[in-house]
Amino acid sequence: MKKIVISTGGGDAPGLNAVIYSVVKASLAREWEVYGSRSGYKGLLDPDELVRLTSENVADITPTGGTILGSTNKGNPFAMPIENLAGEIQIRDVSERVMNNFTRMGFACHIAVGGDGSLEIAHQFATEKGMPVIGVPKTIDNDLEATQMTFGFDTAVSTATEAIDKLHSTAKSHDRVMVVEVMGRDSGWIALSSGISGGADVVLIPEIPFNIESICRKISDNELHGKHYAIIVVAEGACAHESGKIHKTDGQCEVGRQELLLGGIGEWVASKVRTCAAKDTRSMVLGHLQRGGSPTTFDRLLALRFGAAAVRMAENNQFDQMVALVNGEMETVPLAEAIKQRKKVPLHSDKIMTARDIGICLGDDY
Amino acid sequence: MKKIVISTGGGDAPGLNAVIYSVVKASLAREWEVYGSRSGYKGLLDPDELVRLTSENVADITPTGGTILGSTNKGNPFAMPIENLAGEIQIRDVSERVMNNFTRMGFACHIAVGGDGSLEIAHQFATEKGMPVIGVPKTIDNDLEATQMTFGFDTAVSTATEAIDKLHSTAKSHDRVMVVEVMGRDSGWIALSSGISGGADVVLIPEIPFNIESICRKISDNELHGKHYAIIVVAEGACAHESGKIHKTDGQCEVGRQELLLGGIGEWVASKVRTCAAKDTRSMVLGHLQRGGSPTTFDRLLALRFGAAAVRMAENNQFDQMVALVNGEMETVPLAEAIKQRKKVPLHSDKIMTARDIGICLGDDY
Amino acid sequence: MKKIVISTGGGDAPGLNAVIYSVVKASLAREWEVYGSRSGYKGLLDPDELVRLTSENVADITPTGGTILGSTNKGNPFAMPIENLAGEIQIRDVSERVMNNFTRMGFACHIAVGGDGSLEIAHQFATEKGMPVIGVPKTIDNDLEATQMTFGFDTAVSTATEAIDKLHSTAKSHDRVMVVEVMGRDSGWIALSSGISGGADVVLIPEIPFNIESICRKISDNELHGKHYAIIVVAEGACAHESGKIHKTDGQCEVGRQELLLGGIGEWVASKVRTCAAKDTRSMVLGHLQRGGSPTTFDRLLALRFGAAAVRMAENNQFDQMVALVNGEMETVPLAEAIKQRKKVPLHSDKIMTARDIGICLGDDY
Amino acid sequence: MKKIVISTGGGDAPGLNAVIYSVVKASLAREWEVYGSRSGYKGLLDPDELVRLTSENVADITPTGGTILGSTNKGNPFAMPIENLAGEIQIRDVSERVMNNFTRMGFACHIAVGGDGSLEIAHQFATEKGMPVIGVPKTIDNDLEATQMTFGFDTAVSTATEAIDKLHSTAKSHDRVMVVEVMGRDSGWIALSSGISGGADVVLIPEIPFNIESICRKISDNELHGKHYAIIVVAEGACAHESGKIHKTDGQCEVGRQELLLGGIGEWVASKVRTCAAKDTRSMVLGHLQRGGSPTTFDRLLALRFGAAAVRMAENNQFDQMVALVNGEMETVPLAEAIKQRKKVPLHSDKIMTARDIGICLGDDY
Repeated sequence: MKKIVISTGGGDAPGLNAVIYSVVKASLAREWEVYGSRSGYKGLLDPDELVRLTSENVADITPTGGTILGSTNKGNPFAMPIENLAGEIQIRDVSERVMNNFTRMGFACHIAVGGDGSLEIAHQFATEKGMPVIGVPKTIDNDLEATQMTFGFDTAVSTATEAIDKLHSTAKSHDRVMVVEVMGRDSGWIALSSGISGGADVVLIPEIPFNIESICRKISDNELHGKHYAIIVVAEGACAHESGKIHKTDGQCEVGRQELLLGGIGEWVASKVRTCAAKDTRSMVLGHLQRGGSPTTFDRLLALRFGAAAVRMAENNQFDQMVALVNGEMETVPLAEAIKQRKKVPLHSDKIMTARDIGICLGDDY
Repeated sequence: MKKIVISTGGGDAPGLNAVIYSVVKASLAREWEVYGSRSGYKGLLDPDELVRLTSENVADITPTGGTILGSTNKGNPFAMPIENLAGEIQIRDVSERVMNNFTRMGFACHIAVGGDGSLEIAHQFATEKGMPVIGVPKTIDNDLEATQMTFGFDTAVSTATEAIDKLHSTAKSHDRVMVVEVMGRDSGWIALSSGISGGADVVLIPEIPFNIESICRKISDNELHGKHYAIIVVAEGACAHESGKIHKTDGQCEVGRQELLLGGIGEWVASKVRTCAAKDTRSMVLGHLQRGGSPTTFDRLLALRFGAAAVRMAENNQFDQMVALVNGEMETVPLAEAIKQRKKVPLHSDKIMTARDIGICLGDDY
Repeated sequence: MKKIVISTGGGDAPGLNAVIYSVVKASLAREWEVYGSRSGYKGLLDPDELVRLTSENVADITPTGGTILGSTNKGNPFAMPIENLAGEIQIRDVSERVMNNFTRMGFACHIAVGGDGSLEIAHQFATEKGMPVIGVPKTIDNDLEATQMTFGFDTAVSTATEAIDKLHSTAKSHDRVMVVEVMGRDSGWIALSSGISGGADVVLIPEIPFNIESICRKISDNELHGKHYAIIVVAEGACAHESGKIHKTDGQCEVGRQELLLGGIGEWVASKVRTCAAKDTRSMVLGHLQRGGSPTTFDRLLALRFGAAAVRMAENNQFDQMVALVNGEMETVPLAEAIKQRKKVPLHSDKIMTARDIGICLGDDY
Repeated sequence: MKKIVISTGGGDAPGLNAVIYSVVKASLAREWEVYGSRSGYKGLLDPDELVRLTSENVADITPTGGTILGSTNKGNPFAMPIENLAGEIQIRDVSERVMNNFTRMGFACHIAVGGDGSLEIAHQFATEKGMPVIGVPKTIDNDLEATQMTFGFDTAVSTATEAIDKLHSTAKSHDRVMVVEVMGRDSGWIALSSGISGGADVVLIPEIPFNIESICRKISDNELHGKHYAIIVVAEGACAHESGKIHKTDGQCEVGRQELLLGGIGEWVASKVRTCAAKDTRSMVLGHLQRGGSPTTFDRLLALRFGAAAVRMAENNQFDQMVALVNGEMETVPLAEAIKQRKKVPLHSDKIMTARDIGICLGDDY
């Protein structure tokens, strides 16, 4: 009989509970015991934060949002901020204590569900402390090169598309331009997918620096064709490009940073468009709505498959590896590889071509 | 054979197209002709903006958002802003031209779907010009005394509740306070209904001036009971009350107006709570999402009933009246009465009691 | 400090958990203790089936379907089927034992959530045993005269409307007649409401005996107008009327009973229409889908209000009464009255008129 | 300037209108003219059934169900049933007339959206008549080997999962077994995917002949673990296996054919389980609900990508080919290959393993 422990780290993503469900059921089917570590690694620092997971306490969690293992951003055991009695915060390496507890409790495996930060920590435990670790990727932005899809992404795109659908009727009824800012600091997957699905007029993504002028041309072109409103979808990491220079330093967008302080890139685009298009222009930030709530059926299923695959990996002692979706099937990839490559939207991918084909302005050359 | 005309005015509301569908079908069943006036009264100023409505062109519109009669905020014929050749805007009374066109085209009735502004104009046409007018109430805020419910309200409450549901999982996973600002400049119906349904911790409405202190007490009380997150729902017209004085002048909230410039009442509340609760606190404005999209089944049905009732009123020459829902059935009320009374949330209504009973802090006395 | 007990009886209805949530929160706010009786009255027969209800165990139940108090149809304590050691079933009156347990445990009040069967039993406990009982009405069919609405109904109508929406596209793409059978043994509220909202061509309800001939005329009329498909919504209790005679005995529909054995009224209508209209005709039974799942926002809110109102009634010792929605507000009505009057669809109600106005055939006179 | 024609054939699938939208927009962007052929090939037999497609008439169709090109099952031009004046049906080859019309109208390409039947006809036109044909795959069952996914499948799985979610609460509240029959005559993709996502207890698919005994064992095992209800998902093509013999002839299931006449495999399974499990057991057929309605965001996006890719293929003269999704990107495959290989659920695929891992009985060996 094995004992394993599961943790969830980093930001919220719809599907986390489905992974937990599946890990628990697949472990119980093998007559293993499963424990959940609350708040990231906290359960491995303090036994009070470890919870035995049974069929009963995961019975109805699959369709629910959030994670039953509680809040997730509780720090890196290799550099943990800890408050002393004087109320000062000190950074401490508590990884050894984590590893000692892991060993003492007789765990055979740690299934770490998390984004690249959490997976990197997991990999560090594997290489530096010899912890038998298995990773389950969680990035709502879908920007991990090693896996075709991650859970949470389909839900985020659906939420954004539904929002765009709603904004259409309001924009149309009032002859307005609506700017909606969606997630995507480094990659434009959510903006591009929801913009295509939702029938946006303009989609701005970090991979393609944009000119306000092309956006304005698109909007006046709309007017010529009798369409008196427009929807603009902006990834939070989208970046303006002016007079031939791309305004980025170290991957950070420089242009208009001061101006951005008051709003965000969405409001900045709105303010520019309000002027050039001389139309009533509003902006909104979808923000946390994209992370929350019940996963779509697609994400539920993907998360359940990830969880079961992780348990099969545990059975086969495939450690320091991550489960991944490759051409529709579950595969394993070394954690070391998985965490180093981010997936940007390739400029010649069919989604980019589809967007241009159906008349969406991507901010570059309309 | 009668000829009637329908117009939709004021802001967008889910269900407008269902009203149009129902008016058209019920008229055709009586072998009447129906015309739609685009952009409010524009079709009565310019025949190019009148559209013949048939079974075919309303076939699939019931579940759709927006209005097929185009943008809605196109001015009051009694005081219409008109641009002359020199590009100057002048205010003109074009009501006589509207009435002449109405008569020349042989219309027997005008069904005006709109909020209190539009209904007031309709009433003015009835009394001053003798236009046979029938009103259909449209206010997403549900703040009309004369009718138990208006279409669009259930959809707005559902959208807000769904958003609150999504914010729960994110707030819980990150131990955060989430402030969500919903519609309601003068009344708190949407905030109160969605706050109860969505399980908010705090609901702030215009009818009850709030103290930041009670909110902070509620949040620290949550902590004591092991709940490390909170959801605050704020109506856009909610108003802070400080040291015994209610900061309102002429119905306008005064407190913190300068501070509000940068955000809105939601962000203002968030900034205060961030300090007093010492918790990661975020705010979002639901805004236009509440007005857009497909109506709920409840709103579809209500809108369809309103439209058919309006046609029955036309048949019975019940003019200068508005259709209303009274204890679950369709009734008629004089327009003159309907437009003068706004419905605030009564402080002793069962919804207020329900909110307090289930532990929601209303900002006054927690 | 009071102790109260809550039970849920009869069929499933979306919103039961919201009632429980609200009863628990409103009781805790008064510093009362709340217990749930599992499986109807079982918790009052066997203390193992009583469960203490706290903030924690109702924390996330509001949006969920079903009831946390377990299965509901467990018999009437005044005539309970009980298996003896020989395996024989005997009917026993165990009401005295229930009442003794109730008293011994010191309960001050029993909140009984249920349909007319359960409410009748509750009333019997009040009058014959002196139990302080408060009723919360639950009938998905919305057929209680005493209350304007019951929770679960809006969800059922929404589910049925969504199904009709889906059938539209399939019916249209294949030039088919689709018959969909919905709930409603004695009244046509669900069929009528969903039929209007969903744009059905024909709606058949128990209140209006139907002729197959009118249905066939409606379908051939559709064809003449270029509409080659049709949607027929049938309440399960709808009844055919042939050659002037209404085929009912004691409220039971007689016609075609043998034929009905193989399908239900929906399939029976489909078989008749298939012949007369010479069109590909399919039927489906929505059945259990209408009872299950998460309540709509409307039902959530109504259920929460019912629960809190019941606790306020308990506080004021208003026993042998039921909470009701009357013109949008919470009222109390004596249980004795509430249970005796069923609400049929009045033949001159505006919903019937709306249906006819927008061209829906009700099976009588098309 | 090119002229192209698009047709949709075979059964309804959510996403057809999104394909049309995308084909029209991508063609207009290239300044091509696009025509739609109504009712499959009818527009190429009768010019009245050809419709010019413009930006205006596809403006809002992306999220809608069905197909704007009307009913789809209108026969194979190589063997068309035609009624003569005497009312007799004769099978005629009208393919030459189709091809002549195609040429005379100057079409440069035919984009055929359809299932394997329609794609086979398209391929026949390509090889026998030299028609420049491009295929877009449409099979709601997702059973085409050549493409990783087809649109409509995600919607069908979501609809089925939502239904299972709803049945859970009802089954649980009444201690029932619910059997739900879903689509899948030859392959179990829908049943398996929705069964896993929805948390079914038993999933029966055509690829795995089932024993009623294993199902009954699973249900009594549930009882032992305190779970008094069960959900069984059955693909319509699932097949019982008795005493070692697999009852199939030519891919057709033989067992219990007579018994099946009255219901379908779902009702047959229900009748057997009712006996062996001695529990209240109900069955329902989801049927047409799975094909209808608005596509999910996933299906919208996939359909839009397929449409744009088909236009790019037309631009590059890649005829007698089909667009396909391969590892997340658009690819082309020869129609000849695409139509010959059906995709069954592989017995060692991770979905099968996931199902077993999380305790789902697949009918073979529980």
